[in-house]
Amino acid sequence: MTPTQPTAGPADSEADDGAGKKDPGKPLVVLRPAPQRSDRIFSVETMARLRDQFTVVDLEDDPSPAALDAWLPEAFAIVGQPDLPRARLRRAPALRALLNVEGNFFPNVDYEACFEQGIHVLGCGPAYAQPVAEYALGLALDLARGISREDRAFRAGRERYVLAGNTDSILLRHADVGLVGFGNLGRALRPLLAPFQPTVRVFDPWLPPAVLRAHDVVPATIEETLGRSQFVFVLATVTEESRQLIGAEQLDLIPEGGRLILVSRAPVVDYPALLERVDAGRLTAAIDVWPDEPVAPGDPARGLEGLVLSAHRAGGIPAAFHEVGDMVVDDLSLMARGLPPARMQVAARELVGRYRNRPVA
Amino acid sequence: MTPTQPTAGPADSEADDGAGKKDPGKPLVVLRPAPQRSDRIFSVETMARLRDQFTVVDLEDDPSPAALDAWLPEAFAIVGQPDLPRARLRRAPALRALLNVEGNFFPNVDYEACFEQGIHVLGCGPAYAQPVAEYALGLALDLARGISREDRAFRAGRERYVLAGNTDSILLRHADVGLVGFGNLGRALRPLLAPFQPTVRVFDPWLPPAVLRAHDVVPATIEETLGRSQFVFVLATVTEESRQLIGAEQLDLIPEGGRLILVSRAPVVDYPALLERVDAGRLTAAIDVWPDEPVAPGDPARGLEGLVLSAHRAGGIPAAFHEVGDMVVDDLSLMARGLPPARMQVAARELVGRYRNRPVA
Amino acid sequence: MTPTQPTAGPADSEADDGAGKKDPGKPLVVLRPAPQRSDRIFSVETMARLRDQFTVVDLEDDPSPAALDAWLPEAFAIVGQPDLPRARLRRAPALRALLNVEGNFFPNVDYEACFEQGIHVLGCGPAYAQPVAEYALGLALDLARGISREDRAFRAGRERYVLAGNTDSILLRHADVGLVGFGNLGRALRPLLAPFQPTVRVFDPWLPPAVLRAHDVVPATIEETLGRSQFVFVLATVTEESRQLIGAEQLDLIPEGGRLILVSRAPVVDYPALLERVDAGRLTAAIDVWPDEPVAPGDPARGLEGLVLSAHRAGGIPAAFHEVGDMVVDDLSLMARGLPPARMQVAARELVGRYRNRPVA
Amino acid sequence: MTPTQPTAGPADSEADDGAGKKDPGKPLVVLRPAPQRSDRIFSVETMARLRDQFTVVDLEDDPSPAALDAWLPEAFAIVGQPDLPRARLRRAPALRALLNVEGNFFPNVDYEACFEQGIHVLGCGPAYAQPVAEYALGLALDLARGISREDRAFRAGRERYVLAGNTDSILLRHADVGLVGFGNLGRALRPLLAPFQPTVRVFDPWLPPAVLRAHDVVPATIEETLGRSQFVFVLATVTEESRQLIGAEQLDLIPEGGRLILVSRAPVVDYPALLERVDAGRLTAAIDVWPDEPVAPGDPARGLEGLVLSAHRAGGIPAAFHEVGDMVVDDLSLMARGLPPARMQVAARELVGRYRNRPVA
Repeated sequence: MTPTQPTAGPADSEADDGAGKKDPGKPLVVLRPAPQRSDRIFSVETMARLRDQFTVVDLEDDPSPAALDAWLPEAFAIVGQPDLPRARLRRAPALRALLNVEGNFFPNVDYEACFEQGIHVLGCGPAYAQPVAEYALGLALDLARGISREDRAFRAGRERYVLAGNTDSILLRHADVGLVGFGNLGRALRPLLAPFQPTVRVFDPWLPPAVLRAHDVVPATIEETLGRSQFVFVLATVTEESRQLIGAEQLDLIPEGGRLILVSRAPVVDYPALLERVDAGRLTAAIDVWPDEPVAPGDPARGLEGLVLSAHRAGGIPAAFHEVGDMVVDDLSLMARGLPPARMQVAARELVGRYRNRPVA
Repeated sequence: MTPTQPTAGPADSEADDGAGKKDPGKPLVVLRPAPQRSDRIFSVETMARLRDQFTVVDLEDDPSPAALDAWLPEAFAIVGQPDLPRARLRRAPALRALLNVEGNFFPNVDYEACFEQGIHVLGCGPAYAQPVAEYALGLALDLARGISREDRAFRAGRERYVLAGNTDSILLRHADVGLVGFGNLGRALRPLLAPFQPTVRVFDPWLPPAVLRAHDVVPATIEETLGRSQFVFVLATVTEESRQLIGAEQLDLIPEGGRLILVSRAPVVDYPALLERVDAGRLTAAIDVWPDEPVAPGDPARGLEGLVLSAHRAGGIPAAFHEVGDMVVDDLSLMARGLPPARMQVAARELVGRYRNRPVA
Repeated sequence: MTPTQPTAGPADSEADDGAGKKDPGKPLVVLRPAPQRSDRIFSVETMARLRDQFTVVDLEDDPSPAALDAWLPEAFAIVGQPDLPRARLRRAPALRALLNVEGNFFPNVDYEACFEQGIHVLGCGPAYAQPVAEYALGLALDLARGISREDRAFRAGRERYVLAGNTDSILLRHADVGLVGFGNLGRALRPLLAPFQPTVRVFDPWLPPAVLRAHDVVPATIEETLGRSQFVFVLATVTEESRQLIGAEQLDLIPEGGRLILVSRAPVVDYPALLERVDAGRLTAAIDVWPDEPVAPGDPARGLEGLVLSAHRAGGIPAAFHEVGDMVVDDLSLMARGLPPARMQVAARELVGRYRNRPVA
Repeated sequence: MTPTQPTAGPADSEADDGAGKKDPGKPLVVLRPAPQRSDRIFSVETMARLRDQFTVVDLEDDPSPAALDAWLPEAFAIVGQPDLPRARLRRAPALRALLNVEGNFFPNVDYEACFEQGIHVLGCGPAYAQPVAEYALGLALDLARGISREDRAFRAGRERYVLAGNTDSILLRHADVGLVGFGNLGRALRPLLAPFQPTVRVFDPWLPPAVLRAHDVVPATIEETLGRSQFVFVLATVTEESRQLIGAEQLDLIPEGGRLILVSRAPVVDYPALLERVDAGRLTAAIDVWPDEPVAPGDPARGLEGLVLSAHRAGGIPAAFHEVGDMVVDDLSLMARGLPPARMQVAARELVGRYRNRPVA
């Protein structure tokens, strides 16, 4: 906070160091996390750590543009994803970082202006990678062995013992596995698959083969990835190019009996085509993301035996939210020391404007 | 088959090399797999491999003692687990191996007499270790994340999106994990857990600490193993000592919210005590083996929300059965070449009489 | 190359697509790799791949400022590390990337101006990480077991058989290992150490503990890292802060008999103090980098029994140089497609000006 | 020690529980380790552990047959490898285990009689597997990078900096690696190679392909194993079949520039043929075992630049010897509890008579 702008901000009681007043020696951090919530991402300890090092302006209860505007001239960092067009960024000369805590980059920020001003644009995606990867493996093992299907049967008194319930059970060991997309999620999933010694084919048009080989996977076309895999993990984010990347034609490349795990974004897949093939018994699938959430009460997907149904639960677990807060404070601390951030994902200038994910409700 | 005993066996048509007659240069292998079935464990290729190297006497359709007795004097190996008291073994001077394909060692064989005669007693347990380990991990991830529970809710129109359905979801990463027993199952499960970087405590009174440490687990008492674990895998076989090893008192050592995965043998656990704690919400559990199978139609376990119910499905998948056949032929081949078996489990003289498992129905 | 500036560059013969003339549809890449050499980093295949996608201006034989200046207005990328002050960068409006192929970032470039203009500043450090890591492990195993020392003795007829030559031999398994610095080198070394199941302590003041824990190492102070390690790997780069980071006082923290492997940069360590302790038999060490290279002919280090001497050989192997070229072309291809680079290291704005490494002779 | 034979043994002072007299409740263990030494394998703590559980008869200072004979009737176990023909074994009705602490099985024991009497024949080979594996990896990295060669050059003032000394340096990452033999040594080496992501081909005629595949290696013929490997590890034990397994013809299969690491037994390789090829620069090699040890003073191998010379040092390090003692006590404890041994190697009836290793001097 600069001494030459003593009246630029609101009353001291809102920007304080936890003891009721601003500390001129501490950089100013604006919290404006909506639709995320502060108490979900910051544990008491993490918040204390934040307040110990920074003057924290908490705008969670006042997300109005005016409230934020008042603090822009002094802000060192903004935790959240408010609208930040170029003109508004120009009024934040001290701003060093924008820390997105929602999980998606939306076009309400002029990212190009951020890069020009030397503002780090950081995302919290890595916090969700491990939960999603563990969940995806759990779904794959469920599909491999019919865990939830046979649990339902057992509850209905129709359980089948030993081999009778296992006729379509397969191992993950030595299986052919395909990953569509190899970003945070793929990189978190790969090591979990390693002890199964699978052959992992990956389609990711944003990465050169050498990067994939370094992760001990086989670079492949989308056709090879689908056509030779018993397990297909759809991990791609949404861009113009990846919309409906996996349509009817692509689904028909997957071998009979294939198991598809969809944990990234719904628009990547043609749902009617997928559900039709599950209904016909050609494929089984575990679906965590849906074209419309909540799913309609009468949606026939709810009754398909070949599905594992999941309500957008792959990433958003308590530990992940707390990791977001922990990452935020760690990276703020580094940046305040003149070091680069080390935990959050640095948005790529070339990509940040291409994502077409929608906010999670 | 020795030329000096040309009339000891039945008609040539029963002991043949696939072409209708005995080959005096090939060792004689008796197939008597009941209650296992030949066509379940031997693929066409594996059976061809067997017949190529051995004279095969197939008694699957005639499991009478007399049928077997006729071939004992010439038998090089018996694939199966017929009654073999000492007197009968004495009539099999050429017998080099008894290859159990059921999965459990029962007291219908005089194992001590086998060891004295230099007969290898081999078990097929290793074939089931990988399927059980993968299944156990799948069950653990289900309990960690509520996969089958929320699938049921989704089908009933009661799904909860994102955090709402995740309040009790936890990561396996960096978790405290306890294994009760560290035989084939534990050794197959350990590498699958490795990428989650857990702290793994193991209770196994049959193994010195150094063996456990070599597998990168922490040797522990049963109290430590239960008392400090968020995930408890019960992998112990049944002996007099392990019956009800985990009773009410032990279950109460597990931290609140603990998740118990039971995939080995039912008698190790006190079921009423376990189900009571699941019903009370203190623990959740995945149960694959039951005190009485099939489980009674009205068993209250069928309605417990905190359970994942499974009908003895952990090991008996098609790939495991075929692996049994493959192991049998590989080890028969080695032994016919004067080499020790390398794939099946060599029964330990000290342990083979102590198991109290029952046959799988 | 823009059609509106057809005369801005030199004669076609210098900027060609391999067929003798400029291709207006291909982005222009300037090669000016000195002191690196093109034929060392580009295999024939890689160079063909480069020329296939780009108009290549090769200034290897004419590294004069004027030669480069002529191409600045059209350059899409510069492969090399020429002097690039702000004024000169301003004359390169199309420049998207500066690809350093020497290995160190020197202050002859105005990096801040690069960031403002949206120019990627990329380094080739990752190409050397694997060679250095493998070499460092080889040096550690040499120190653990006296490989080069006993080879010398054998050649001199003084070899000692079995235990006689092994009195100070130790295992790496379960050892206490300390890493000073955890950048590219540490991250490449960590997985090589994993199967030895060591306890790895890391001192890296630029990284928060959570980053280190994610790599399965123990965050530690420099005192703990040195004081509890049988093997100390010095992997830190040179900054004002890290000069003489490991002086006499720090060396005395290392337990008696400790083994120090120095493969990053000489200024991090107080050489006289280190050599004195090696001479006294308190420590052994493997040294790949030296305060002055070449080392003076009569340097007493040449005669120390407790040293493994190495002439700056850890990273610069043929495969590494070829990987540099491969990375360059891969990342140029990605950037030409509007994607971010994926293989070279993106220089951090905060750090690029802080390195104090000197060029490798 | 049975109360019915109170006078069968020597004076109490020789067989005591550490407190000066026999304890009738403790099984009797005879120590007769020559040519191994008790104080090399048993630490003070381990010896205390042994004496705590057993009545120990220490014959280290009296290795006469008579001394041993006196204790045979009561001996529960013998630690060592004395002559034990059948007649002598018959006089040891209580003998449950023979624990070889030399490392090789020699024909001075009637192993068949041991098996008939139910005596465990145990070897200490596993104690040396990790030291040998670490050493073999160290040797391979030395050959890959010229560590000892360039250390020698540095000492002679002929060091070559950076690339000049690296023209033949190669990575282990992604290399083709061949293992000849896959017993204890191969199994200990395999995980150390894993992070280098090599293709590992293995020739082991005693193992079926499925066993090798389970260790993530490619089963191969000796021709494939040698013919496609940049690094060849010779890990085979000596039998009639493996003598000179790798002769001139086989050596010529190894690709030019191949690196051979020999750490098991000398008779497996044709030394003159190997040294000739190293001298000619076709191969480099690291040799730890020699046809005659000590090697003759004027042996030309001492001067070959392409060799790393080692004096049978791969396994015999202090930690390995202590592990032998620790294994002995752990397994004795298990057997005294009626459990099978878990740490030492159980000799295979089919193999124990086939080894042709000679004692280590």
